[in-house]
Amino acid sequence: MGVVIPLEEPRREAGIQALSELVAADLERVNALILSRTGSDVQMIPEVANHLISSGGKRLRPLLTLAAAKLASYTGDGHVRLAASVEFMHTATLLHDDVVDESEMRRGKLAARMMWGNQASVLVGDFLLGQAFKMMVEVGSLACLDILSTAATVIAEGEVMQLAAAKNIATTEDEYLAVIRSKTAALFAAACEVGPALVQRPKPEQAACRSYGANLGIAFQLVDDALDYGGREAKLGKKVGDDLREGKITLPVIFAVRRGTPGEREFWRKTLEDGEIGDNTLEIAIDLLQRHGAIDETLARARHYGTIARDALALFPESEPKKAMLDVVDFVTSRAH
Amino acid sequence: MGVVIPLEEPRREAGIQALSELVAADLERVNALILSRTGSDVQMIPEVANHLISSGGKRLRPLLTLAAAKLASYTGDGHVRLAASVEFMHTATLLHDDVVDESEMRRGKLAARMMWGNQASVLVGDFLLGQAFKMMVEVGSLACLDILSTAATVIAEGEVMQLAAAKNIATTEDEYLAVIRSKTAALFAAACEVGPALVQRPKPEQAACRSYGANLGIAFQLVDDALDYGGREAKLGKKVGDDLREGKITLPVIFAVRRGTPGEREFWRKTLEDGEIGDNTLEIAIDLLQRHGAIDETLARARHYGTIARDALALFPESEPKKAMLDVVDFVTSRAH
Repeated sequence: MGVVIPLEEPRREAGIQALSELVAADLERVNALILSRTGSDVQMIPEVANHLISSGGKRLRPLLTLAAAKLASYTGDGHVRLAASVEFMHTATLLHDDVVDESEMRRGKLAARMMWGNQASVLVGDFLLGQAFKMMVEVGSLACLDILSTAATVIAEGEVMQLAAAKNIATTEDEYLAVIRSKTAALFAAACEVGPALVQRPKPEQAACRSYGANLGIAFQLVDDALDYGGREAKLGKKVGDDLREGKITLPVIFAVRRGTPGEREFWRKTLEDGEIGDNTLEIAIDLLQRHGAIDETLARARHYGTIARDALALFPESEPKKAMLDVVDFVTSRAH
Repeated sequence: MGVVIPLEEPRREAGIQALSELVAADLERVNALILSRTGSDVQMIPEVANHLISSGGKRLRPLLTLAAAKLASYTGDGHVRLAASVEFMHTATLLHDDVVDESEMRRGKLAARMMWGNQASVLVGDFLLGQAFKMMVEVGSLACLDILSTAATVIAEGEVMQLAAAKNIATTEDEYLAVIRSKTAALFAAACEVGPALVQRPKPEQAACRSYGANLGIAFQLVDDALDYGGREAKLGKKVGDDLREGKITLPVIFAVRRGTPGEREFWRKTLEDGEIGDNTLEIAIDLLQRHGAIDETLARARHYGTIARDALALFPESEPKKAMLDVVDFVTSRAH
């Protein structure tokens, strides 16, 4: 059994492809920079870093940085370093997340911490965060440094919020949204804002790109949450049910708990708060989620935020980068990533 | 039993006191800033951060930042934010170190990870690192941002180097020095360089302060290593023998291994590489260290680097800040911290 999530293959592929083609040359420079900046005389650093960085991530965040810079008619080359910084910040977060969540898999491979230990994951994450800041400093824009350093603290705050809320089935939708606004959406927002900030575009344009990124990020996380209860393992790169096993409260669960009977709530409490996971717990959970339309509702919420992201770009005239960025919204709200 | 490390109480107290008095007003502002910048709506963040920050650290690194700014005749107030940044970088490192080393104690109190878990220590460390960068960005000096972001990557590199060299008794003095130059001395160097960099003092003056900080940092770490085999527990704030129990290769051990008989080397191998620790292992270790003069030799090396730190400041005319900074060298090479 499993939840069927409607996927429109060709549209989805197109969604990310237009963007990739638009900034193909820049993305190649970003990839080269990423490779050179994971270099260190300390052999373990490139090993650990590249295990994750070369493991088939979509580079969605740096792609957005490049696209938004193009949207803002930026003609310099600072956006390449900023895009690499954004990817390093993301990678550092993943390395630390895996330690915090005790995850065994990441992007369909063993998590770095399973191969080199928690210690290396913590420290190489710190190294990448340091390199991210070094690259930003090289670009020399205090506005961009402000945007990205603020994002770094907000992301960490979101992660701690999630930790504090973990295993609490009384979490509300609002509380959950506050968590993902911080831990996921803040980096998407910053990734999209630095391009226009680099060119000192008018404030409304910078705010529009920021709003696009933030709402796209929320939609992205909500689809991720839905996929965790119904995605195809190979594409998701982690196992279906990971959130359940880690006791994570995500929006589908919040819906099912709120709409459930007292007996169902007791099931969720035992499963998520006490960690009582049996052979058929995932099956029961998915059945309850379906019965209450929790996955569909989560995807509907994702589309809601996707719509806000689209509307945020309305003040820009039609252009290739704008079209590509709008396509990303479709990609995110209908993906199996 | 135990190694007697000569401590000259009055001189030591004077060493740090002159510095503290010189920058007392600034230090108060740094402490207020530290307190306000650990604030967050996420309650766990100030709890974890203040547990460590308020636990009686000497604020040696921020004190050095304030002193070096005074030495460079800086009259603005950016140095206060930079000093707080330096302390946050240091605190973030300690939080992550405790996770990496699986330490139970820190500064005579339970380590944060023992009270809030490894997860919180990793994430609150990330938050403090983010706040450190935010404060640097507020100061707006790209030169200082460059110095401190470079230090952040070098520190992480040093930590990974140490991880890779852990439990290897064949580590050479040179290899060990490379580790502590990165993991400890880099932050001392940066802390001392940002003041003069803020005023754009001539390069030789910036280099002098950097060299002072780097060599002081090496001396500091070497004394720390010696104290771990003979310091007084209450003052050290961690247990004598922690390095031994964690399998850490430090300079005293490197001397004892090199100068030891094959039988002694076998003892060190079993103890540090295999982690075979019995009731009298620490006693045996301290006896071997004494027999080969390993503690004295380590302290002599510390004084050697202390001398380089002193000489680095020679190009500055006599002044109160210079005198205070020279006193710190005495404090560090003769302390029981």
